[in-house]
Amino acid sequence: MIRHTTLTLATRGKGLYPFTREAEAWIAKQGIANGIASLFVQHTSCSLVIQENADPDVTLDLRDFFERLVPEDDETYRHTAEGPDDMTSHIRSALTQTSLTVPLISGRMALGTWQGLYLFEHRSHPHQRRVVLQLIGE
Amino acid sequence: MIRHTTLTLATRGKGLYPFTREAEAWIAKQGIANGIASLFVQHTSCSLVIQENADPDVTLDLRDFFERLVPEDDETYRHTAEGPDDMTSHIRSALTQTSLTVPLISGRMALGTWQGLYLFEHRSHPHQRRVVLQLIGE
Amino acid sequence: MIRHTTLTLATRGKGLYPFTREAEAWIAKQGIANGIASLFVQHTSCSLVIQENADPDVTLDLRDFFERLVPEDDETYRHTAEGPDDMTSHIRSALTQTSLTVPLISGRMALGTWQGLYLFEHRSHPHQRRVVLQLIGE
Repeated sequence: MIRHTTLTLATRGKGLYPFTREAEAWIAKQGIANGIASLFVQHTSCSLVIQENADPDVTLDLRDFFERLVPEDDETYRHTAEGPDDMTSHIRSALTQTSLTVPLISGRMALGTWQGLYLFEHRSHPHQRRVVLQLIGE
Repeated sequence: MIRHTTLTLATRGKGLYPFTREAEAWIAKQGIANGIASLFVQHTSCSLVIQENADPDVTLDLRDFFERLVPEDDETYRHTAEGPDDMTSHIRSALTQTSLTVPLISGRMALGTWQGLYLFEHRSHPHQRRVVLQLIGE
Repeated sequence: MIRHTTLTLATRGKGLYPFTREAEAWIAKQGIANGIASLFVQHTSCSLVIQENADPDVTLDLRDFFERLVPEDDETYRHTAEGPDDMTSHIRSALTQTSLTVPLISGRMALGTWQGLYLFEHRSHPHQRRVVLQLIGE
Protein backbone atom coordinates (compact mmCIF):
# COMPACT_ATOMS: atom_id res chain seq x y z
CA MET A 1 0.00 0.00 0.00
CA ILE A 2 1.16 3.49 -0.82
CA ARG A 3 -0.25 6.70 0.65
CA HIS A 4 0.90 10.28 0.44
CA THR A 5 -0.05 13.70 1.69
CA THR A 6 1.48 17.16 1.71
CA LEU A 7 1.94 18.94 5.02
CA THR A 8 2.00 22.73 4.76
CA LEU A 9 4.01 24.38 7.51
CA ALA A 10 4.03 28.11 8.24
CA THR A 11 7.42 29.52 9.25
CA ARG A 12 8.19 32.91 10.80
CA GLY A 13 11.90 33.37 10.19
CA LYS A 14 14.99 31.26 10.75
CA GLY A 15 14.79 28.32 13.10
CA LEU A 16 13.50 24.78 13.63
CA TYR A 17 9.77 24.07 13.49
CA PRO A 18 8.55 20.75 14.93
CA PHE A 19 6.03 18.72 12.93
CA THR A 20 6.17 15.25 14.49
CA ARG A 21 2.57 15.48 15.73
CA GLU A 22 1.15 16.49 12.34
CA ALA A 23 3.00 13.60 10.71
CA GLU A 24 1.93 11.10 13.38
CA ALA A 25 -1.71 12.19 13.23
CA TRP A 26 -1.89 11.58 9.48
CA ILE A 27 0.04 8.28 9.65
CA ALA A 28 -2.27 6.91 12.36
CA LYS A 29 -5.22 7.12 9.93
CA GLN A 30 -3.60 5.29 6.99
CA GLY A 31 -3.87 1.73 8.27
CA ILE A 32 -0.33 0.73 7.29
CA ALA A 33 1.44 -1.35 9.92
CA ASN A 34 4.98 -1.81 8.61
CA GLY A 35 7.03 -0.05 6.00
CA ILE A 36 8.84 3.21 5.38
CA ALA A 37 7.78 6.81 5.97
CA SER A 38 9.52 9.03 3.43
CA LEU A 39 9.71 12.79 4.05
CA PHE A 40 10.64 15.25 1.33
CA VAL A 41 10.75 19.05 1.46
CA GLN A 42 9.95 20.72 -1.88
CA HIS A 43 12.27 23.71 -1.38
CA THR A 44 15.98 24.52 -1.54
CA SER A 45 16.06 27.26 1.10
CA CYS A 46 14.75 25.22 4.03
CA SER A 47 15.49 21.63 5.03
CA LEU A 48 14.69 18.69 7.30
CA VAL A 49 16.45 17.49 10.43
CA ILE A 50 15.70 14.97 13.15
CA GLN A 51 16.78 16.45 16.47
CA GLU A 52 16.24 16.34 20.20
CA ASN A 53 12.63 17.08 21.14
CA ALA A 54 13.16 17.75 24.85
CA ASP A 55 15.16 20.95 25.40
CA PRO A 56 14.20 23.87 23.09
CA ASP A 57 17.71 25.27 23.60
CA VAL A 58 18.99 22.59 21.21
CA THR A 59 17.07 24.11 18.33
CA LEU A 60 18.29 27.62 19.17
CA ASP A 61 21.91 26.45 19.39
CA LEU A 62 21.54 24.67 16.05
CA ARG A 63 20.12 27.79 14.39
CA ASP A 64 22.95 29.93 15.77
CA PHE A 65 25.65 27.44 14.77
CA PHE A 66 24.55 27.53 11.13
CA GLU A 67 24.44 31.35 11.31
CA ARG A 68 28.13 31.29 12.21
CA LEU A 69 29.10 28.46 9.85
CA VAL A 70 27.51 30.07 6.79
CA PRO A 71 27.70 33.82 7.50
CA GLU A 72 25.40 36.22 5.70
CA ASP A 73 27.96 38.98 5.64
CA ASP A 74 30.16 37.02 3.30
CA GLU A 75 30.66 39.23 0.25
CA THR A 76 31.88 36.47 -1.99
CA TYR A 77 28.49 35.08 -3.09
CA ARG A 78 27.47 35.55 -6.71
CA HIS A 79 23.82 34.65 -6.10
CA THR A 80 22.46 37.66 -4.18
CA ALA A 81 19.32 38.63 -6.11
CA GLU A 82 16.93 37.74 -3.29
CA GLY A 83 18.96 39.24 -0.45
CA PRO A 84 21.73 38.24 1.97
CA ASP A 85 19.79 35.23 3.31
CA ASP A 86 19.32 33.67 -0.14
CA MET A 87 22.58 31.88 -0.97
CA THR A 88 23.23 31.09 2.69
CA SER A 89 19.88 29.27 2.73
CA HIS A 90 20.87 27.07 -0.20
CA ILE A 91 24.16 26.20 1.49
CA ARG A 92 22.52 25.44 4.86
CA SER A 93 20.03 23.29 3.02
CA ALA A 94 22.84 21.30 1.32
CA LEU A 95 24.51 20.76 4.72
CA THR A 96 21.35 19.28 6.23
CA GLN A 97 18.60 17.17 4.58
CA THR A 98 16.07 17.46 1.78
CA SER A 99 14.80 13.89 2.29
CA LEU A 100 14.51 11.59 5.30
CA THR A 101 13.25 8.05 5.72
CA VAL A 102 11.87 6.75 9.01
CA PRO A 103 10.93 3.10 9.59
CA LEU A 104 7.24 2.46 10.20
CA ILE A 105 6.74 -0.36 12.73
CA SER A 106 3.38 -1.45 14.18
CA GLY A 107 1.69 1.59 12.67
CA ARG A 108 4.05 4.22 14.11
CA MET A 109 7.30 5.91 13.10
CA ALA A 110 10.12 4.18 14.98
CA LEU A 111 11.64 7.40 16.29
CA GLY A 112 13.96 7.18 19.28
CA THR A 113 12.71 8.50 22.62
CA TRP A 114 14.29 11.92 22.16
CA GLN A 115 13.87 12.30 18.42
CA GLY A 116 11.53 14.78 16.74
CA LEU A 117 10.98 15.85 13.13
CA TYR A 118 11.82 19.46 12.32
CA LEU A 119 11.58 21.77 9.36
CA PHE A 120 14.69 23.96 9.39
CA GLU A 121 13.77 27.37 7.94
CA HIS A 122 16.77 29.27 6.58
CA ARG A 123 15.02 32.41 5.26
CA SER A 124 14.32 35.49 7.39
CA HIS A 125 10.79 36.19 6.19
CA PRO A 126 7.64 34.09 6.78
CA HIS A 127 7.03 31.24 4.33
CA GLN A 128 4.56 28.44 3.65
CA ARG A 129 6.63 25.25 3.29
CA ARG A 130 5.54 21.97 1.73
CA VAL A 131 6.68 18.58 3.04
CA VAL A 132 5.56 15.50 1.11
CA LEU A 133 4.99 12.58 3.49
CA GLN A 134 4.68 9.18 1.87
CA LEU A 135 4.15 5.69 3.27
CA ILE A 136 5.04 2.43 1.55
CA GLY A 137 4.13 -0.67 3.46
CA GLU A 138 1.61 -3.34 4.25
CA MET B 1 6.89 -3.19 -8.74
CA ILE B 2 10.60 -2.58 -8.42
CA ARG B 3 12.86 -1.25 -11.15
CA HIS B 4 16.44 -0.07 -11.11
CA THR B 5 19.06 1.33 -13.42
CA THR B 6 22.52 2.83 -13.10
CA LEU B 7 23.16 6.28 -14.51
CA THR B 8 26.78 6.94 -15.47
CA LEU B 9 27.73 10.60 -15.25
CA ALA B 10 30.97 12.07 -16.61
CA THR B 11 32.51 14.79 -14.46
CA ARG B 12 35.27 17.24 -15.38
CA GLY B 13 36.50 18.53 -12.04
CA LYS B 14 34.86 19.96 -8.94
CA GLY B 15 31.33 21.23 -9.16
CA LEU B 16 27.66 20.29 -9.46
CA TYR B 17 26.44 18.30 -12.46
CA PRO B 18 22.67 18.22 -13.11
CA PHE B 19 21.02 14.90 -13.95
CA THR B 20 17.30 15.53 -13.41
CA ARG B 21 16.52 15.00 -17.11
CA GLU B 22 18.35 11.67 -17.33
CA ALA B 23 16.49 10.45 -14.23
CA GLU B 24 13.12 11.70 -15.48
CA ALA B 25 13.58 10.15 -18.92
CA TRP B 26 14.21 6.70 -17.44
CA ILE B 27 11.42 7.00 -14.85
CA ALA B 28 8.87 7.96 -17.52
CA LYS B 29 9.39 4.58 -19.22
CA GLN B 30 8.92 2.36 -16.13
CA GLY B 31 5.14 2.54 -15.83
CA ILE B 32 5.11 3.10 -12.07
CA ALA B 33 2.59 5.71 -10.92
CA ASN B 34 3.18 6.11 -7.20
CA GLY B 35 6.04 5.19 -4.90
CA ILE B 36 9.56 6.21 -4.02
CA ALA B 37 12.53 7.03 -6.23
CA SER B 38 15.71 6.16 -4.38
CA LEU B 39 19.04 7.62 -5.55
CA PHE B 40 22.38 6.26 -4.40
CA VAL B 41 25.88 7.28 -5.46
CA GLN B 42 28.41 4.41 -5.35
CA HIS B 43 31.40 6.56 -4.39
CA THR B 44 32.82 8.31 -1.32
CA SER B 45 34.51 11.24 -3.10
CA CYS B 46 31.42 12.70 -4.76
CA SER B 47 27.90 13.09 -3.46
CA LEU B 48 24.27 14.02 -4.18
CA VAL B 49 22.41 17.25 -3.51
CA ILE B 50 19.06 18.69 -4.49
CA GLN B 51 19.50 22.36 -5.27
CA GLU B 52 18.09 25.29 -7.18
CA ASN B 53 17.88 24.62 -10.89
CA ALA B 54 17.36 28.19 -12.10
CA ASP B 55 20.49 30.29 -11.48
CA PRO B 56 23.80 28.53 -12.27
CA ASP B 57 25.51 30.89 -9.81
CA VAL B 58 24.02 28.82 -6.98
CA THR B 59 26.07 25.80 -7.98
CA LEU B 60 29.25 27.89 -8.26
CA ASP B 61 28.69 29.47 -4.85
CA LEU B 62 28.08 26.03 -3.35
CA ARG B 63 31.27 24.65 -4.86
CA ASP B 64 33.27 27.62 -3.55
CA PHE B 65 31.74 27.43 -0.07
CA PHE B 66 32.85 23.80 0.35
CA GLU B 67 36.31 24.77 -0.92
CA ARG B 68 36.58 27.23 1.96
CA LEU B 69 34.88 25.01 4.57
CA VAL B 70 37.13 22.00 3.87
CA PRO B 71 40.41 23.54 2.70
CA GLU B 72 42.85 21.47 0.69
CA ASP B 73 45.87 23.20 2.13
CA ASP B 74 45.17 21.75 5.55
CA GLU B 75 48.31 19.86 6.51
CA THR B 76 46.69 17.87 9.25
CA TYR B 77 45.20 15.08 7.13
CA ARG B 78 46.66 11.59 7.49
CA HIS B 79 45.03 10.24 4.32
CA THR B 80 46.98 11.97 1.51
CA ALA B 81 48.00 9.09 -0.78
CA GLU B 82 45.83 10.22 -3.70
CA GLY B 83 46.64 13.93 -3.47
CA PRO B 84 45.36 17.05 -1.70
CA ASP B 85 41.78 16.65 -3.02
CA ASP B 86 41.41 13.10 -1.63
CA MET B 87 40.55 13.48 2.06
CA THR B 88 38.72 16.74 1.44
CA SER B 89 36.47 14.84 -0.98
CA HIS B 90 35.55 12.27 1.67
CA ILE B 91 34.71 15.04 4.15
CA ARG B 92 32.64 17.02 1.64
CA SER B 93 30.82 13.80 0.80
CA ALA B 94 30.01 13.20 4.50
CA LEU B 95 28.67 16.77 4.79
CA THR B 96 26.26 16.28 1.88
CA GLN B 97 24.39 13.11 0.74
CA THR B 98 25.17 9.62 -0.47
CA SER B 99 21.48 8.69 -0.75
CA LEU B 100 18.31 10.62 -1.49
CA THR B 101 14.66 9.61 -1.73
CA VAL B 102 12.14 11.52 -3.82
CA PRO B 103 8.40 10.77 -3.81
CA LEU B 104 7.01 9.46 -7.08
CA ILE B 105 3.47 10.78 -7.68
CA SER B 106 1.43 10.23 -10.84
CA GLY B 107 4.47 8.85 -12.62
CA ARG B 108 6.82 11.74 -11.91
CA MET B 109 9.26 12.75 -9.17
CA ALA B 110 7.50 15.28 -6.93
CA LEU B 111 10.31 17.83 -7.05
CA GLY B 112 9.51 21.41 -6.12
CA THR B 113 9.42 24.00 -8.90
CA TRP B 114 13.01 25.11 -8.34
CA GLN B 115 14.53 21.76 -7.36
CA GLY B 116 17.00 19.81 -9.47
CA LEU B 117 19.10 16.68 -8.86
CA TYR B 118 22.86 17.19 -8.87
CA LEU B 119 25.95 15.06 -8.61
CA PHE B 120 28.48 17.01 -6.54
CA GLU B 121 31.97 16.10 -7.76
CA HIS B 122 34.68 16.74 -5.18
CA ARG B 123 37.75 15.50 -7.11
CA SER B 124 39.80 17.70 -9.46
CA HIS B 125 40.26 15.20 -12.29
CA PRO B 126 37.60 13.79 -14.64
CA HIS B 127 35.66 10.76 -13.39
CA GLN B 128 32.88 8.44 -14.46
CA ARG B 129 30.37 8.35 -11.58
CA ARG B 130 27.67 5.79 -10.96
CA VAL B 131 24.26 6.68 -9.50
CA VAL B 132 21.84 3.80 -8.83
CA LEU B 133 18.26 4.91 -9.40
CA GLN B 134 15.58 2.63 -8.06
CA LEU B 135 11.78 2.81 -8.02
CA ILE B 136 9.48 1.01 -5.63
CA GLY B 137 5.80 1.53 -6.26
CA GLU B 138 2.65 0.44 -8.00
CA MET C 1 7.96 -8.25 1.62
CA ILE C 2 9.01 -6.14 4.56
CA ARG C 3 11.53 -7.16 7.21
CA HIS C 4 13.19 -5.22 9.99
CA THR C 5 15.68 -5.71 12.76
CA THR C 6 17.54 -3.50 15.21
CA LEU C 7 21.32 -3.65 15.32
CA THR C 8 22.84 -2.68 18.66
CA LEU C 9 26.33 -1.24 18.33
CA ALA C 10 28.68 -0.60 21.26
CA THR C 11 30.76 2.57 20.96
CA ARG C 12 33.78 3.59 23.02
CA GLY C 13 34.09 7.31 22.43
CA LYS C 14 34.12 9.56 19.37
CA GLY C 15 34.79 8.05 16.00
CA LEU C 16 33.42 5.89 13.19
CA TYR C 17 32.36 2.30 13.86
CA PRO C 18 31.87 0.01 10.84
CA PHE C 19 28.80 -2.22 10.71
CA THR C 20 28.59 -3.33 7.07
CA ARG C 21 29.19 -6.97 7.98
CA GLU C 22 26.46 -7.07 10.63
CA ALA C 23 24.01 -5.52 8.17
CA GLU C 24 25.03 -7.87 5.32
CA ALA C 25 24.79 -10.96 7.52
CA TRP C 26 21.21 -10.17 8.52
CA ILE C 27 20.17 -9.16 4.99
CA ALA C 28 21.52 -12.41 3.50
CA LYS C 29 19.02 -14.40 5.60
CA GLN C 30 15.88 -12.44 4.64
CA GLY C 31 15.31 -13.87 1.17
CA ILE C 32 14.59 -10.52 -0.48
CA ALA C 33 16.22 -10.10 -3.89
CA ASN C 34 15.47 -6.53 -4.94
CA GLY C 35 14.32 -3.44 -3.08
CA ILE C 36 15.57 -0.86 -0.62
CA ALA C 37 17.54 -1.22 2.58
CA SER C 38 16.65 1.62 4.91
CA LEU C 39 18.93 2.47 7.84
CA PHE C 40 17.83 4.69 10.71
CA VAL C 41 19.71 5.60 13.89
CA GLN C 42 17.42 6.22 16.88
CA HIS C 43 19.61 8.88 18.51
CA THR C 44 20.45 12.56 18.04
CA SER C 45 24.03 12.48 19.34
CA CYS C 46 25.43 9.96 16.88
CA SER C 47 24.78 9.56 13.16
CA LEU C 48 25.29 7.48 10.02
CA VAL C 49 27.76 7.93 7.18
CA ILE C 50 28.87 5.88 4.22
CA GLN C 51 32.62 6.24 3.84
CA GLU C 52 35.73 4.60 2.47
CA ASN C 53 36.29 1.15 3.93
CA ALA C 54 39.95 0.69 2.89
CA ASP C 55 42.20 3.12 4.76
CA PRO C 56 41.37 3.55 8.49
CA ASP C 57 43.04 6.98 8.33
CA VAL C 58 39.94 8.28 6.54
CA THR C 59 37.79 7.68 9.60
CA LEU C 60 40.35 9.35 11.89
CA ASP C 61 40.60 12.39 9.60
CA LEU C 62 36.81 12.63 9.49
CA ARG C 63 36.55 12.49 13.28
CA ASP C 64 39.20 15.20 13.64
CA PHE C 65 37.63 17.46 11.01
CA PHE C 66 34.31 17.51 12.87
CA GLU C 67 36.18 18.21 16.12
CA ARG C 68 37.56 21.36 14.51
CA LEU C 69 34.36 22.34 12.66
CA VAL C 70 32.17 22.09 15.77
CA PRO C 71 34.54 22.89 18.65
CA GLU C 72 33.68 21.82 22.19
CA ASP C 73 35.33 24.83 23.76
CA ASP C 74 32.74 27.13 22.24
CA GLU C 75 31.16 28.97 25.17
CA THR C 76 28.14 30.15 23.25
CA TYR C 77 25.97 27.02 23.59
CA ARG C 78 22.88 27.22 25.74
CA HIS C 79 22.39 23.44 25.94
CA THR C 80 25.23 22.31 28.24
CA ALA C 81 23.47 20.16 30.85
CA GLU C 82 25.13 16.92 29.76
CA GLY C 83 28.63 18.30 29.29
CA PRO C 84 30.75 19.94 26.58
CA ASP C 85 30.22 17.08 24.09
CA ASP C 86 26.41 17.31 24.25
CA MET C 87 25.41 20.18 21.96
CA THR C 88 28.35 19.54 19.65
CA SER C 89 27.00 16.00 19.17
CA HIS C 90 23.60 17.29 18.10
CA ILE C 91 25.21 19.65 15.59
CA ARG C 92 27.54 16.99 14.18
CA SER C 93 24.52 14.72 13.86
CA ALA C 94 22.61 17.39 11.89
CA LEU C 95 25.61 17.83 9.56
CA THR C 96 25.72 14.11 8.74
CA GLN C 97 22.85 11.57 8.47
CA THR C 98 20.13 10.11 10.65
CA SER C 99 18.74 7.96 7.80
CA LEU C 100 20.26 6.30 4.75
CA THR C 101 18.80 4.20 1.96
CA VAL C 102 20.85 1.68 0.02
CA PRO C 103 19.54 -0.19 -3.04
CA LEU C 104 19.16 -3.94 -2.62
CA ILE C 105 20.02 -5.76 -5.85
CA SER C 106 20.22 -9.55 -6.25
CA GLY C 107 20.02 -10.01 -2.50
CA ARG C 108 22.87 -7.66 -1.58
CA MET C 109 23.28 -3.97 -0.79
CA ALA C 110 24.60 -2.28 -3.94
CA LEU C 111 27.48 -0.52 -2.19
CA GLY C 112 30.39 0.70 -4.30
CA THR C 113 33.69 -1.14 -4.05
CA TRP C 114 35.10 1.24 -1.45
CA GLN C 115 31.94 2.02 0.47
CA GLY C 116 31.22 0.91 4.01
CA LEU C 117 28.46 1.69 6.53
CA TYR C 118 29.56 3.52 9.67
CA LEU C 119 27.99 4.66 12.89
CA PHE C 120 29.55 8.04 13.73
CA GLU C 121 29.67 8.38 17.52
CA HIS C 122 29.86 12.00 18.70
CA ARG C 123 29.85 11.45 22.49
CA SER C 124 33.00 10.86 24.54
CA HIS C 125 31.69 8.08 26.78
CA PRO C 126 30.73 4.52 25.78
CA HIS C 127 27.19 4.03 24.50
CA GLN C 128 24.90 1.32 23.17
CA ARG C 129 23.46 2.62 19.89
CA ARG C 130 20.42 1.35 18.03
CA VAL C 131 20.21 1.25 14.22
CA VAL C 132 16.93 0.09 12.69
CA LEU C 133 17.56 -1.81 9.45
CA GLN C 134 14.56 -2.38 7.24
CA LEU C 135 14.08 -4.06 3.87
CA ILE C 136 11.24 -3.46 1.45
CA GLY C 137 11.33 -5.57 -1.67
CA GLU C 138 10.39 -8.74 -3.43
